[in-house]
Amino acid sequence: MENFTFLNPTKIVFGRDTETTVGVETARYSRKILLHYGGGSIKASGLYDRVCASLKAAGVEWIELGGVKPNPRLSLVHEGVRLCKQHGLGFILAVGGGSAIDSAKAIAMGAVIDGDVWDFYIGKGSPSDALPIGTVLTIPAAGSESSDGTVITNEEGWLKRAVGGPFLYPRFSILNPSLCVTLPPFQVACGAADIMAHLMERYFTNVTHVAFTDRLIEATMKTVIAQAPKVLADPDDYDAWSELMWAGTIAHNNLLNTGRIGDWASHDIEHEVSGIYDVAHGAGLAVVFPAWMKYVLHHDIDRFVQWAVRVWNVELDVFDKEATAREGIARLEAFFHKIGLGTTLASLGIHDDRIEEMAKKGTDGDRRTLGNFVKLDSRAIADILRLAR
Amino acid sequence: MENFTFLNPTKIVFGRDTETTVGVETARYSRKILLHYGGGSIKASGLYDRVCASLKAAGVEWIELGGVKPNPRLSLVHEGVRLCKQHGLGFILAVGGGSAIDSAKAIAMGAVIDGDVWDFYIGKGSPSDALPIGTVLTIPAAGSESSDGTVITNEEGWLKRAVGGPFLYPRFSILNPSLCVTLPPFQVACGAADIMAHLMERYFTNVTHVAFTDRLIEATMKTVIAQAPKVLADPDDYDAWSELMWAGTIAHNNLLNTGRIGDWASHDIEHEVSGIYDVAHGAGLAVVFPAWMKYVLHHDIDRFVQWAVRVWNVELDVFDKEATAREGIARLEAFFHKIGLGTTLASLGIHDDRIEEMAKKGTDGDRRTLGNFVKLDSRAIADILRLAR
Repeated sequence: MENFTFLNPTKIVFGRDTETTVGVETARYSRKILLHYGGGSIKASGLYDRVCASLKAAGVEWIELGGVKPNPRLSLVHEGVRLCKQHGLGFILAVGGGSAIDSAKAIAMGAVIDGDVWDFYIGKGSPSDALPIGTVLTIPAAGSESSDGTVITNEEGWLKRAVGGPFLYPRFSILNPSLCVTLPPFQVACGAADIMAHLMERYFTNVTHVAFTDRLIEATMKTVIAQAPKVLADPDDYDAWSELMWAGTIAHNNLLNTGRIGDWASHDIEHEVSGIYDVAHGAGLAVVFPAWMKYVLHHDIDRFVQWAVRVWNVELDVFDKEATAREGIARLEAFFHKIGLGTTLASLGIHDDRIEEMAKKGTDGDRRTLGNFVKLDSRAIADILRLAR
Repeated sequence: MENFTFLNPTKIVFGRDTETTVGVETARYSRKILLHYGGGSIKASGLYDRVCASLKAAGVEWIELGGVKPNPRLSLVHEGVRLCKQHGLGFILAVGGGSAIDSAKAIAMGAVIDGDVWDFYIGKGSPSDALPIGTVLTIPAAGSESSDGTVITNEEGWLKRAVGGPFLYPRFSILNPSLCVTLPPFQVACGAADIMAHLMERYFTNVTHVAFTDRLIEATMKTVIAQAPKVLADPDDYDAWSELMWAGTIAHNNLLNTGRIGDWASHDIEHEVSGIYDVAHGAGLAVVFPAWMKYVLHHDIDRFVQWAVRVWNVELDVFDKEATAREGIARLEAFFHKIGLGTTLASLGIHDDRIEEMAKKGTDGDRRTLGNFVKLDSRAIADILRLAR
């Protein structure tokens, strides 16, 4: 186990009707805020009205910025930064999923500097501060509601990049599982795939003696595997949503990588795919992850065997570990299919003519490798994408 | 799942040599502190010198109060409160195990009020504030290093009582597993039993649809079951200590009871046993918990079956659930025996002449019941203690 420090300061307010507390929670930080969200779904569901009523009752005024898209865009972030500065806003409330929250985090960093916040995403300087943010989460998926990271896409060149820092943890996140009942099945499936990916990125590590966090990650994976099909079969199943939603937060709040070094190559590779093709992040991960596994399998077959046996209940064949491990990967693919996702680039409508381009972009033109479990150069990335065809 | 809020603000600094950061961490809060600890073991190990050197280097001055005993005493708490007030101390650093930390928490509450802090422990008024505290943990056991609770024993009447509040979370806790290598085996075993008890208190709940936290608790139990025997077999096994130490903190930091209502009768019953007989808390729990399980088994046999199958790898006999559940309890007892603990009152040198007295004291003379999974009156408590003879 590696040395680590761990402190997750996000206050989780979880359960039925909890969005009615958003005004009180927000007023602790500022009474003049940016209200940031995506499309019309929060208006159709009535959530928007309830949030506004709660803010109003707590004496909080707001400026609105809707229109966040999946793979949130830098241009909207710039607009948000402008609004914060112009109106002297002291807090950003994101209502929505990971895209709204990641966009809010970017705005929060941009609002406290003079330069362009995009610089942080491409490694020009490091952020050290941000406006406080809070969230009302509407989908279990990105984990951004309790994470210290943000991912933004720059439309100029379609670069999708991540940045992080402890000042990005939301001050509070409100999780009401009943807000999820109106989600379209495809979004639900993408969210579940994203949660699984967050767990697998952490699970596949070269750090030894991480037995406890292995177990915690396995417990969380088993929860996603059990509960995601339930909410798809019956969107009104509050209990199943509760399990999935809380698992989605814990999957990405940094507890499960204490003492470990995660991989993250699959996320980075997917960012190249969705950066160019604008596919849903979770759908891209369901394609990239199984291919990545097949490529790196022999790097640590025992870790794959443990995962297959414990998480997927594969019967251990001690005389053929590879078969055991491959059966685990096959069950992961079957899980993705069961929840309605494809596991090939072709299923996303992507053909293989830009594989080399994605591999080159992902490594900044061969100036870096991706991943920690196995370090991948552009050639390896291209091989993985070809395995995913 | 119940609605909940969750925020654990304790910063965990984990790993080798981390005690060298204690000065810097402490100086964030105060430069004039109470240094609180138990006996001479931290001096013999050199930890005391390293902590003092780190405090000195960070410009922190301290007043010392050693002498904390297991089942920490109110009289020493009063002495600590007096020192804090007399010298205007702004922070308490506990170096030791759960007793030193619980004592520090009591002092921290007492230092900011005019009256007697014991009143809070017997329900006369509620605490609302405390001095900030930090810890350097020397044994995985109580979980007090990242909990919001404290248990103190009043020598007048040997009453052992608990109190809690969010202001009691330590600001930081430093966990260096290599500090554990010199612990006596009996203390190690008691610590492991305490951790298991914290997990079982949370596991046995009447709240339904807690599948995710069930899994997390099971993962943590399996870690304790695997790692405690390892550190007893080889006290120099840093890796096993790391797993056990981190599991001990997570077991009691309130994550694992999110959305659940725990039981806590066994803890309360044990407090009566150790309040009168001054036995080690973990040793008492190893006696009380199996007896409690036998007594409440039929209240929810399925929960016991799940626990036996998943945690203890008992083969499910679908035609005889009780046999499956009882085999789980038998394996718990075998685990306690394996790590060197007894599971009967007789093994603690306790005979049955004061069972009724303990049952009456535990219920404040039949004015309250203990536990949530099953509510226990004094007669039930006496029956459980008789099962433990």
